[in-house]
Amino acid sequence: MALATIGNSEFDRDTAVVRRAPGVYDAHLAAGWTIAQAVNGGYLLALVGRALGDALPHPDPSSVTAHYLTASVPGPAVIRTEVVRTGRTMSTGTATLVQFTEDGTEIERLRVLAAYGDLDALPDDVRTSAKPPAIPPREHCPGPDSAPGGRASVPGGTSFAERIALRLDPATAGWAVGAPSGKGEIRGWFGLADGREPDPLSLLLTVDALPPTAFELGLSGWVPTVELTAHVRRRPAPGPLRVALTTRNLAGGFLEEDAEVWDSADRLVAQARQLARVRLTG
Amino acid sequence: MALATIGNSEFDRDTAVVRRAPGVYDAHLAAGWTIAQAVNGGYLLALVGRALGDALPHPDPSSVTAHYLTASVPGPAVIRTEVVRTGRTMSTGTATLVQFTEDGTEIERLRVLAAYGDLDALPDDVRTSAKPPAIPPREHCPGPDSAPGGRASVPGGTSFAERIALRLDPATAGWAVGAPSGKGEIRGWFGLADGREPDPLSLLLTVDALPPTAFELGLSGWVPTVELTAHVRRRPAPGPLRVALTTRNLAGGFLEEDAEVWDSADRLVAQARQLARVRLTG
Repeated sequence: MALATIGNSEFDRDTAVVRRAPGVYDAHLAAGWTIAQAVNGGYLLALVGRALGDALPHPDPSSVTAHYLTASVPGPAVIRTEVVRTGRTMSTGTATLVQFTEDGTEIERLRVLAAYGDLDALPDDVRTSAKPPAIPPREHCPGPDSAPGGRASVPGGTSFAERIALRLDPATAGWAVGAPSGKGEIRGWFGLADGREPDPLSLLLTVDALPPTAFELGLSGWVPTVELTAHVRRRPAPGPLRVALTTRNLAGGFLEEDAEVWDSADRLVAQARQLARVRLTG
Repeated sequence: MALATIGNSEFDRDTAVVRRAPGVYDAHLAAGWTIAQAVNGGYLLALVGRALGDALPHPDPSSVTAHYLTASVPGPAVIRTEVVRTGRTMSTGTATLVQFTEDGTEIERLRVLAAYGDLDALPDDVRTSAKPPAIPPREHCPGPDSAPGGRASVPGGTSFAERIALRLDPATAGWAVGAPSGKGEIRGWFGLADGREPDPLSLLLTVDALPPTAFELGLSGWVPTVELTAHVRRRPAPGPLRVALTTRNLAGGFLEEDAEVWDSADRLVAQARQLARVRLTG
């Protein structure tokens, strides 16, 4: 069976937007990207990111900040964009994603502020001290078909888990068998289940696609994202991605979750940080 | 001589805003917060932050993202705010800071998207693995009156340097004497020169007030901020702050600069990350 390709994959179909007026797009939040009935935040980010990539004169997300205002639900949505500034090498825009109640009341789900550029136009210099995360080879990492852990252990459902090819570093998968490490770290190999290769848009999904670090901290409740900012630093090479999430400060009912995404060429392709609310239980 | 206090200090006077209509504020960008004729990005963030604190129902910045669109200049400015969402414990808003050319043309300088809350209402739980940066005692760190380094070495002028009490860790001050470490780290003790204690608003200044990590990486050019996101995690205790800046990935003409701010009670009070452009020279 042929693998899915960029532009012809479930991710591309489910993040498609249709321009109905200049800067205004119709979208459909697909039920397949939900976890426990909540639409995944990275999927929403990619969907809005696709609309902004159409509305702005530059193609690739460089810095994208989203504030998650209310809980999105599968179904129709409208994305409205505004071009804030058009520069030679970068442009800036905002977007809002709204949904409608049965009586037609509009509810805003997401507000986004973003800078777009052209990744292919960047110089090829690299002077970096960051190192790829140390993750065992994929075949030694539990995946969706492994037990314990994997698909069945994703709280609340399997829709989202069926769409991603995720293999967690066993050292950070203890939460799945009731033995969290107590460290705020989650690492793993990431791809799309249908084999579609990564691109800048799918990186927006990738930065918020792993189980939350809160699980390894022994917290079992929901960890809603208040704000997430993703920086896309480079077009990813084909092949599996490595993702490392780290939380260093859990205090005052909030935690930050830092994400790094590395490609198969050992280049840091995306960084993200989110601020999330936590409820201490147990 | 009595020290300046919160509400009665140069920082407070220079970030004052006057409401001229609901959500619209007049401001004046003070010449004292410039470095080489560029208005400091942290000062601009605090100024817009003050307007948002007035416009939103919650008092304290929690997550503030700014996109720096064009170079601000000292003089009059107008800040327009919009309330995006009002929740029970948090609210969300946007702001734009504009200036005007001699012929009255409006130019947008800054676009901001922010979530505000009430720091005093947060629970006091702390489960953090982050450690304060290791910085020698203040008296062993070079300050503005020391030689070498200090005020005279801030490229382009001394206005900004006169307003802050900054003492850099000698291990990260090599750039000031032409011997950068090559590591993307800058650490130091930070306060306001007139003795005004830190508060959530001054933390927005603090996260972008140190020399850029690029200097220690041996880069001498301007490092303009594209986007900066600051998270205020806790109301700071009185006393000097410790600030640590880290750059791990310099590639493709961009770098990220991560900032951590710790208070005198050893609590992490703010985190920030900015995406900045670099030009490799030499």
